[in-house]
Amino acid sequence: MPSIKKILVANRGEIALRIMRTAREMNIKTVAVFSEADRRSPHVRYADEAVCIGPAPSSESYLNVAKILKVCRQLNVDAIHPGYGFLSENAGFAKSVKEAGLIFIGPSPEAIEIMGSKLAAKQAAAAYNIPMVPGTASAIQDRDEAKKIASAIGYPILIKASAGGGGKGMRVVEEESTFDEQMDRAVSEAQSSFGDGSVFIEKYITSPKHIEIQVLGDQHGNIIHLFERECSIQRRHQKVVEEAPSISITAGIRKEMGRCAVDVARSCGYYGAGTVEFILDENQNFYFLEMNTRLQVEHPVTEQITGVDLVKQMIRIAEGEPITIRQEDLSIKGHSIEIRVYAEDAANGFLPDVGKLHTYVKPDGNGVRVDDGFEQGMDIPIYYDPMISKLITYGETRDEAIAKMIRAIDEYQISGVQTTLPFCRFVMTHPAFVSGNFDTNFVTKHFHPDMIKPIPDQDADALAALISGFVLKNPAGAEVIQNEAKATSVSQWKDRRLRLR
Amino acid sequence: MPSIKKILVANRGEIALRIMRTAREMNIKTVAVFSEADRRSPHVRYADEAVCIGPAPSSESYLNVAKILKVCRQLNVDAIHPGYGFLSENAGFAKSVKEAGLIFIGPSPEAIEIMGSKLAAKQAAAAYNIPMVPGTASAIQDRDEAKKIASAIGYPILIKASAGGGGKGMRVVEEESTFDEQMDRAVSEAQSSFGDGSVFIEKYITSPKHIEIQVLGDQHGNIIHLFERECSIQRRHQKVVEEAPSISITAGIRKEMGRCAVDVARSCGYYGAGTVEFILDENQNFYFLEMNTRLQVEHPVTEQITGVDLVKQMIRIAEGEPITIRQEDLSIKGHSIEIRVYAEDAANGFLPDVGKLHTYVKPDGNGVRVDDGFEQGMDIPIYYDPMISKLITYGETRDEAIAKMIRAIDEYQISGVQTTLPFCRFVMTHPAFVSGNFDTNFVTKHFHPDMIKPIPDQDADALAALISGFVLKNPAGAEVIQNEAKATSVSQWKDRRLRLR
Repeated sequence: MPSIKKILVANRGEIALRIMRTAREMNIKTVAVFSEADRRSPHVRYADEAVCIGPAPSSESYLNVAKILKVCRQLNVDAIHPGYGFLSENAGFAKSVKEAGLIFIGPSPEAIEIMGSKLAAKQAAAAYNIPMVPGTASAIQDRDEAKKIASAIGYPILIKASAGGGGKGMRVVEEESTFDEQMDRAVSEAQSSFGDGSVFIEKYITSPKHIEIQVLGDQHGNIIHLFERECSIQRRHQKVVEEAPSISITAGIRKEMGRCAVDVARSCGYYGAGTVEFILDENQNFYFLEMNTRLQVEHPVTEQITGVDLVKQMIRIAEGEPITIRQEDLSIKGHSIEIRVYAEDAANGFLPDVGKLHTYVKPDGNGVRVDDGFEQGMDIPIYYDPMISKLITYGETRDEAIAKMIRAIDEYQISGVQTTLPFCRFVMTHPAFVSGNFDTNFVTKHFHPDMIKPIPDQDADALAALISGFVLKNPAGAEVIQNEAKATSVSQWKDRRLRLR
Repeated sequence: MPSIKKILVANRGEIALRIMRTAREMNIKTVAVFSEADRRSPHVRYADEAVCIGPAPSSESYLNVAKILKVCRQLNVDAIHPGYGFLSENAGFAKSVKEAGLIFIGPSPEAIEIMGSKLAAKQAAAAYNIPMVPGTASAIQDRDEAKKIASAIGYPILIKASAGGGGKGMRVVEEESTFDEQMDRAVSEAQSSFGDGSVFIEKYITSPKHIEIQVLGDQHGNIIHLFERECSIQRRHQKVVEEAPSISITAGIRKEMGRCAVDVARSCGYYGAGTVEFILDENQNFYFLEMNTRLQVEHPVTEQITGVDLVKQMIRIAEGEPITIRQEDLSIKGHSIEIRVYAEDAANGFLPDVGKLHTYVKPDGNGVRVDDGFEQGMDIPIYYDPMISKLITYGETRDEAIAKMIRAIDEYQISGVQTTLPFCRFVMTHPAFVSGNFDTNFVTKHFHPDMIKPIPDQDADALAALISGFVLKNPAGAEVIQNEAKATSVSQWKDRRLRLR
């Protein structure tokens, strides 16, 4: 079995740091690559070696396969971890890595390719007994035939791009009269977004929950699952709050969903860490959606409830080691929630916000984990996903994890950019979230920008002055009750920070 | 049952913050008290209200019962958490709190009093079947009788102060000829340190391991234990590395030690969180040592392996709630290690070091928890225990927890004062520690100051310059391999930081 000695992390930010930390714990050397926009990033300093591979646009740096492989040759790298995004689900890249004699810390190019096509994935999974959303099994060739199928399924139906993701090339058709119009738009969007106009039809689930199963497979055919993550709280079709376990499913559904996830992985000979996504309807029916052939942003909640370090498992699997964790030994311990702290203005349509992190003080303590890739004083680059950090809490129960999350959000001090912290605090205290009575329409149903008010920067600055003022103005030695001045000012600030109407 | 609405934390630093964080998670308001030396401390800003209660010396502030109770009256506080140290094991304080109509978050004054006396504790525990170190059951009245007992036990023996702690009033007697001389010294030390010259005799265990059991009792007579902590790595009779579970004991010993700890707690009608300390000899015999009637510094390792928030349990118990955790539902999950990061110079007899935290950057990520009460730029006050922080790691196995600890120690950046970080890294990599073949004599047996070299401040400053230099000197857009410059400099720094001979 090849023993990996030096890993190049073909990524940036928090996930690059996350991977390097585990590599260091395994006594494996690390190489960072970085773009010109990221030269001050912590991941660059954290690595044993770091190489600037080009200008800020991803196509010239983080997506530049030739440059990345050149660095590997020059620095005697023996394995590449792609993180998520960028080249992580690019079958061609995985193949090039292999052809260069390096280890790709992830699945085979073939598995990436199959699961990268929604239709191919469905076809592969069809051999197993996996529930699928009713719809067409292949790309639509005949529009009249498609209309017949849509009628049989019953409107509303969904037209989806085979190569799609992130909501692009996806259209809801409410009734047959608008079928042609929506079909034209879907094909045209799919063509322009993915260079592939293939679309297919699915029944539209009106109140779906997004639930996914973490799987681990090795190169000897062993596949296990590490239970589910509930990821229904989304904005712009993107997850923003994730948790494990899900409050929505029974032990029976968990078991069956786990079985299906393992079989989906088996259908493409999967190894490495992967995630099988399902949707759950109002009647507790679940359907296979797609498989993500990479480490997910939200993987930490699974680590918290199982104690398994997923990056460590990925590296061992890539070395050819068999998985030593037995399915029957795994159990769910406690509850974990992750929120994604984005530089975004939730009060303004979740538009990305750019700027400098004037203040950046992280929460800490019992049951709190922060995975980030920024420091105070750094700029949020406009070129990349505007995620600042992932704030993860862990408690014995869901209520405890929520209480720790609210406490941690209140401790997080960020000024200079608007963030999703106030929105996430809104979610944590909303009765629909607390009770579990929510689906992927949470934002549309329950949230209005007026419900939170962003923190004006001058207030944050005023607070900083006030806090140091409070401490300094206290006359030395005098026995002074500070509560009036302090409680008023800090609570006022908190109100400004998150004023719920 | 009284519901606590506002807690005054009669403590400072990390433990004050630790307690306030849980209080906040429980929607309980907090009041900080602070001395003039602590006005810039995070615990002061974290509290909902904060009051300066006097000058730096503890007797004038953190030990000033009248002032603390006055603040409680003025701010409508309904409960006091004493933390550890200061007033935490002062039965008179617990009584005054009760008499003032407030809730003391801890055991009854009677339980504190019994367990505060080593002899009274032994006498209380004697009714249960608790193994005790062979020795005198009461204070020595007759010196000749004591010599007879010492001969019967066999030399070496230990003379200990009944009111003792921290090694004061403790003398080893190697042979009968020096008995009188050592006895005189022990009595005189005990008298001057504790105002009580009572001493007793115990068999001296030459290779003892220090193992303690965490217990929780409620006001309805229910007592459970949360397994052991191994605390044998000590310097100056003070713990510096703690872990749970212990590598030294079998499941059978764990069970029996747990039973004994619960019975010791029962012997004094204990409620709240407490710790029963044992010593374990070379032949796996264990003996009851003493009970600590407070939250321990090292409580986080127990929280990590059980998932139980001990401060939350303490507050609920103080409210009169019954414990809802059943002994049979508790199990050990993974492994956790804590190191105490003291401002001390391990290369110079672990002498406290004072100064300013010029650089203070904490480690983070999967399996790492930092409980601290300092920030970059703050001074370490000379008035108090020089502990900067507690660094806690958690992994599936002991090896994983050790690997995470080494990684976290390497991430921790502190300049301005010497710390125990290099010593703790030495421990983590020492074969005796890794194999479990160590006892409380670890430092004497295995450590010599020459084995670590402290970081000269100029090197730390040079590193900071170098790192920013590294990032800045990289010519924009040029594709430059940085490994030579970087690897050389950072590894050199690391060598300086911890140069093992």
